[in-house]
Amino acid sequence: MPGHIVSSYDTDLEDLRRQISEMGGVAEKMTGEATLALARQDESLAQAVILADKRLDALQREIEEKAVLLIAKRQPMAVDLRETISAIRVSGDLERIGDLAKNVAKRVTAIADQSPAQKIVLGVRHMSDLAEGQLKDVLDAYASADLKAAHDVWERDGEIDALYNSLFRELLTYMMEDPRNISFCTHLLFCAKNVERIGDHTTNIAETIHYLATGEIFMGDRPKNDSSNYATVAPGA
Amino acid sequence: MPGHIVSSYDTDLEDLRRQISEMGGVAEKMTGEATLALARQDESLAQAVILADKRLDALQREIEEKAVLLIAKRQPMAVDLRETISAIRVSGDLERIGDLAKNVAKRVTAIADQSPAQKIVLGVRHMSDLAEGQLKDVLDAYASADLKAAHDVWERDGEIDALYNSLFRELLTYMMEDPRNISFCTHLLFCAKNVERIGDHTTNIAETIHYLATGEIFMGDRPKNDSSNYATVAPGA
Repeated sequence: MPGHIVSSYDTDLEDLRRQISEMGGVAEKMTGEATLALARQDESLAQAVILADKRLDALQREIEEKAVLLIAKRQPMAVDLRETISAIRVSGDLERIGDLAKNVAKRVTAIADQSPAQKIVLGVRHMSDLAEGQLKDVLDAYASADLKAAHDVWERDGEIDALYNSLFRELLTYMMEDPRNISFCTHLLFCAKNVERIGDHTTNIAETIHYLATGEIFMGDRPKNDSSNYATVAPGA
Repeated sequence: MPGHIVSSYDTDLEDLRRQISEMGGVAEKMTGEATLALARQDESLAQAVILADKRLDALQREIEEKAVLLIAKRQPMAVDLRETISAIRVSGDLERIGDLAKNVAKRVTAIADQSPAQKIVLGVRHMSDLAEGQLKDVLDAYASADLKAAHDVWERDGEIDALYNSLFRELLTYMMEDPRNISFCTHLLFCAKNVERIGDHTTNIAETIHYLATGEIFMGDRPKNDSSNYATVAPGA
């Protein structure tokens, strides 16, 4: 089977790759800055994150339209088709990572006047450092088609989940100690959950790299450590 | 431009449509049963919802594989290509609706021994009735390619968001009244958020129907009424 017939197809794929890489850069930055804004109670940084999401949405639209056009016009086969489908998937995950980071940024204003406990904010920040690092690694793996690096990221999603679980219990305990903590703790709970979901989308990208390299869609059961769905904390415990 | 060349293409598309419709039925049922299990504290119904998600995941995999194969083999153009791309998108949204319903079902066990306030559980149930109705309507619109019905669903997403906002404030107030409410209220908060997100995915499907009918990817700004990101509630307020 011929690889691809026209050399302009390479140019089109190169375009897609460049735009995915640009989206990845924006999503990474938003992930880091959203929780930095939270930690510093920096509302103008939060606004910048909220604005950046528009760029991400626009890029996703462009990538989707370009990819669909590419499939229609060039009718790619095998690995070229997979790369085009993968671009659609990865851009979808990056767009949702942007939404989640934006949602964290929006909560900076809500908790600004409630002097949230720094210890817990730092817990969320720590989760986000992990998530940002994994996102960076998975984007590098995508750019270099490095299947092993993608598998490494996939294996590490459990770390973020484990952090989220312990933070979840800590937040509940904190709320029970003092009702004045409830409002900001609820927002931090959603922030932590959002970062945990950023980790899930990063894992999705790792799975897409697997698909791109092998043609198989799934890699097996995820190493999930999120047991918070079942968690309960008793008052005074 | 010829519509499509081979009649077996129609059979393939018909297959995709039938599988989407099956996925839709499962997702709808899961959405309703997850909050019913919550309201009745019915752990065995919750288990059934958790199990049903496996069927949804398997169907999504089949649809994705079939659609990609279809694009590669048949190289569809124009509306046939759009329908194939749409099948991938809709199956993705339905799969995530299933994940969200499963997550609600998992929390039934967590709050089973905490006798959650019925008033609030019924609030979540009310949200889920709305979400289930809109999901049904959007799936009917997809099956009959009814653009107007899709636009109607799209317009109505604001109702679920508005319900979520008032429930969010109610839950916070409830937590502040008594620390024994905190644990189950936190779980109900995530349940409500999950149902709100089921509404978002339903809106995505409405947008996909727009794309399928018109070839344009986006419909404009969503009628978002979710202001809970900015909400604060003071103790004793």
